Amino acid sequence: MASLQSLEQELTTYNAKYNELRLKPDTDPAALEEVRKKLGELKKTIGQAKAAASGGKDAEKKKERERLLLKTAKVRTKRVPRVPANSYSGLGLHLSTQGTRDYGPAEMYCREHVERIVKEVFTSFGGACLDTPVFERKDVLTGKYGEDQKLIFDLMDQGGEQLALRYDHTVPLGRYLAMMGSNITQHKLWQIGKVYRRDQPVMSKGRMREFSQADFDISGNWDSMIPDAEILSLLHTILTRLDLGEFTIKLNNRKILDGIFEVCGVPAEKIRTISSAVDKLDKLPWSEVKKEMTEEKGLDPAVADKIGEYVKHKGGLALLEQLRSDTTLTANARAKEGIEEMGLLFTLLDAYGVLEKISFDLSLARGLDYYTGIIYEAIVEASAPPGFKANAEAGSPEDSTSAKKKSKKPKQSGGEEDEEEVDESQVGVGSIAAGGRYDGLVGMFASAAAGADKKAANKGGVPCVGVSIGLDRIFALVYPKWIEQGKRNKDTMVYVMAAGDGLLAERIKLVRALREAGIKTDFLAKNKPKLPTQFAAGEKDEVPFAVILGESELKEGLVTVKEQRWEMVDGKKAKIVTEGSEKGEKVRRDELVAWLKSRDLWKRWEA
Amino acid sequence: MASLQSLEQELTTYNAKYNELRLKPDTDPAALEEVRKKLGELKKTIGQAKAAASGGKDAEKKKERERLLLKTAKVRTKRVPRVPANSYSGLGLHLSTQGTRDYGPAEMYCREHVERIVKEVFTSFGGACLDTPVFERKDVLTGKYGEDQKLIFDLMDQGGEQLALRYDHTVPLGRYLAMMGSNITQHKLWQIGKVYRRDQPVMSKGRMREFSQADFDISGNWDSMIPDAEILSLLHTILTRLDLGEFTIKLNNRKILDGIFEVCGVPAEKIRTISSAVDKLDKLPWSEVKKEMTEEKGLDPAVADKIGEYVKHKGGLALLEQLRSDTTLTANARAKEGIEEMGLLFTLLDAYGVLEKISFDLSLARGLDYYTGIIYEAIVEASAPPGFKANAEAGSPEDSTSAKKKSKKPKQSGGEEDEEEVDESQVGVGSIAAGGRYDGLVGMFASAAAGADKKAANKGGVPCVGVSIGLDRIFALVYPKWIEQGKRNKDTMVYVMAAGDGLLAERIKLVRALREAGIKTDFLAKNKPKLPTQFAAGEKDEVPFAVILGESELKEGLVTVKEQRWEMVDGKKAKIVTEGSEKGEKVRRDELVAWLKSRDLWKRWEA
Repeated sequence: MASLQSLEQELTTYNAKYNELRLKPDTDPAALEEVRKKLGELKKTIGQAKAAASGGKDAEKKKERERLLLKTAKVRTKRVPRVPANSYSGLGLHLSTQGTRDYGPAEMYCREHVERIVKEVFTSFGGACLDTPVFERKDVLTGKYGEDQKLIFDLMDQGGEQLALRYDHTVPLGRYLAMMGSNITQHKLWQIGKVYRRDQPVMSKGRMREFSQADFDISGNWDSMIPDAEILSLLHTILTRLDLGEFTIKLNNRKILDGIFEVCGVPAEKIRTISSAVDKLDKLPWSEVKKEMTEEKGLDPAVADKIGEYVKHKGGLALLEQLRSDTTLTANARAKEGIEEMGLLFTLLDAYGVLEKISFDLSLARGLDYYTGIIYEAIVEASAPPGFKANAEAGSPEDSTSAKKKSKKPKQSGGEEDEEEVDESQVGVGSIAAGGRYDGLVGMFASAAAGADKKAANKGGVPCVGVSIGLDRIFALVYPKWIEQGKRNKDTMVYVMAAGDGLLAERIKLVRALREAGIKTDFLAKNKPKLPTQFAAGEKDEVPFAVILGESELKEGLVTVKEQRWEMVDGKKAKIVTEGSEKGEKVRRDELVAWLKSRDLWKRWEA
Repeated sequence: MASLQSLEQELTTYNAKYNELRLKPDTDPAALEEVRKKLGELKKTIGQAKAAASGGKDAEKKKERERLLLKTAKVRTKRVPRVPANSYSGLGLHLSTQGTRDYGPAEMYCREHVERIVKEVFTSFGGACLDTPVFERKDVLTGKYGEDQKLIFDLMDQGGEQLALRYDHTVPLGRYLAMMGSNITQHKLWQIGKVYRRDQPVMSKGRMREFSQADFDISGNWDSMIPDAEILSLLHTILTRLDLGEFTIKLNNRKILDGIFEVCGVPAEKIRTISSAVDKLDKLPWSEVKKEMTEEKGLDPAVADKIGEYVKHKGGLALLEQLRSDTTLTANARAKEGIEEMGLLFTLLDAYGVLEKISFDLSLARGLDYYTGIIYEAIVEASAPPGFKANAEAGSPEDSTSAKKKSKKPKQSGGEEDEEEVDESQVGVGSIAAGGRYDGLVGMFASAAAGADKKAANKGGVPCVGVSIGLDRIFALVYPKWIEQGKRNKDTMVYVMAAGDGLLAERIKLVRALREAGIKTDFLAKNKPKLPTQFAAGEKDEVPFAVILGESELKEGLVTVKEQRWEMVDGKKAKIVTEGSEKGEKVRRDELVAWLKSRDLWKRWEA
């Protein structure tokens, strides 16, 4: 067996290799997968080696081993409990290669809760719903995603048009708005649905090939920055209501960023690809990003260094002041326009009361090609890379200089620490929402169709701003808390049972009557089930009211009702036994609905 | 110009040709499309010819012309208002070939309403939600759909497994249950989502290549027919709550049907394909179905005639009695079992109070291969083929003989009348929900995986029964009513406006406060909009409360609120003008939330 030290050296090498491959746009997925496997094996071997070695070693070693194992458990088991390990390798989903998964009842109950909050806020902001097909003509999708282009899922050509699965909601929305022309009836549209990317999946963090996004977009010619501020307020409201803990919205403006590239001397045709390199600064140290700019993308190292000076800034109003006084930058028309926009935006964000969560961050670039104005990305503390906490503290809008000093430091030092930053198990779920302004997309579709209808193309330009919320990533944060709190996964209120001879027809009649009265009710689908079996079934769903039918009581027009409550004891649900819950209460059958709805227990569940 | 008579003769020929092609499994879609186009042209020409001819003709001719034109309008424009005709042929959706469509805000508001009712009933029956990926491994999907197999959408092989879009929710559920093995935590699962079929789309009737289904399934070993009755009660409840008008649930049992095939002498290997021919009896006359059985599928005509005698029966308890006394049939073990099941089922359906909507129909076969027990299909009057009304009346469970006489007659007469029955514009949206028992599907998956895990396969058999509700078809029925009733398409409650200088920051602050109080609020994203422009924007969304800010009032801590109501006048929405709505009321800003929530208008919208 290799020494632990040599194994760890090998791990470092493979980590570096993996990250290098992963970030190259042209990497063969099979090669990447091979390295990923090797990495996994190495980690396992090291874990075993440490476990074996720890027996007689000191407490510190033991602690280290536990940390490693806990980390795995956290990612693999605790954070997002997976579908039970399946031995059905001959069928079903290969989670690792397809990058999709089933969501079972407990998970869906939580997901529905998340979706309900998001929808509630969407409609609260005046949004109307739009639904577009899951596939589009391939030519509608291509040319809008930049370097991620290659991740589009194609449908097989079965004798029609070439189709592909949508990659986001934004491009289908752009296509829809272009088709609608002047018939747009609503300017605030929301979409919730699945989108598809042939990306390397990281299931535990909610990064999958099929994932759910909730989008809200404002289209139309409105006064500058008002829709932009409205969207940021919407995002702020959603993240607050979801109770995800501390969050930061990183904010930048493509006009400023492109202005910076221009004044630094980036050739026009390289602006988008250099922008996409800058976007990796939240995962890679500057040295790596610079290497990508210069070695891969052929940028003059001196130009790269100038960019490096700019993009290390983050903060708030102070940073805005600093940019305003930068005469090199303000001499550039685009940068000047962007700086003015940001000034206006900050005023509005103040009125919305969301300024304290905003971090104006010149290193934020976003990968997608279609953005033309402000861009943003929300990260929560729980999901952020290790450096986040310091950044978040520094990210208050009044503090630009301290942010500069603190935040980029760990990223600029070389060696192992950097590798650690891109170790997937350390990164967390990443950004949980992102978006920006895209004023050219609808016009691009309209122009493409200009041959067919010139008039439409002329009035085709519709400025838009929007946000996409990653529902799987939010679920990956919310669900473990639900498990901890022992939430129910159903809202069944009544379980109807019978003592004695089963009374199947009587049970069915009562169940039917309760359901017709709007009470969620269930019963055991057996002819003559034993009472304990029926109780067990009702308890599995934690149903608050057990209604028991008995032959003699039925004749008197009575039923017995037992109220049931549960509490968390040592991480497990336990039924609270009281005299009342044991004995139950006799209630008139024809007054049962009213009686149930009058109970405190009922009202507690209603709320 | 050809004579009207010769044109109508040509129409008859093309109608026949179209229907023949459409029902053949190996028809080239392009050829079918060509015939369909020709049909459309012919109908248009005939319509024009009749219109031109009607000028000096008698009233009857005029009436006929109106019927034809109305019919087209109903299908193409009125029933499901489409995305505005787009001249953007160079991009976007080709509705006719892709068979998908966008749903805009007004439509989605209605669809969300339908989905809310369906979900409410699902949870009311104790259901828990499941979500599976939109694509599956191709081998999971194949071999389960019978002759519709060929309609599966494949994904392009981009270096992974061969994937395909799900065709329904049932097979993914079966795969999920097999993977879960004994870890199933819930026996009632519901799924709502899109499924995909490369079928010939008929947009106006909600038959598309991408469509939404809502499924509810009960899995597990329960006592006979209890889950089956539960599902039928669920379907009954949903159709009742959706207020779709009169409906009938056609019901049969594969065991009886297969027993009939056996006693009539159908070879075992032909049973499924002959069953699939019988399933077409709701669209084709017996003569056509017999032709398919004998000429296409090689069945002995004498055997076909025997089948024909059985499958013309429909009714209720009387039909059950008739089958019980048929000693030829009860000598067959499967048929006997099926007849016993139906007897038990009718008793339970009586307890559920749904018997009157059930029509026991021996011609119902369902195309899918996986059904093993009862099968059913719901049709509503508004969606049914012309013969429906008579069938529905005859379908009361006590009346078997009269049903026999009345219902099949029009289908057995030859000639033009039969063609009329399969004319797509006459058929309506077809069945709006269907399902059945499939006891072998989960076990089939478990067995397929037996090589990997024998133990799992042994306990893999999980009996299931479920229903799929066609949400697009329901939408196609509900939406025209919504349009007629002039329903809103948003729930925004307050529109905040400002007189004079715009007061942007003040508007934003009030909007924010109202939203935080849970009040859906909007405003115009302009700096200094004119008051009439703001009113117009609020009125477009039919917002019940207009809140107007004025500089002097703000200083006094007051705002002006105007209540707004609308009514339908001659098919159009009109604002009701009263003195109160014109003048408005002054309300203290800090009491605004409470004031709004106390208003009758508020409560009306809450309900």
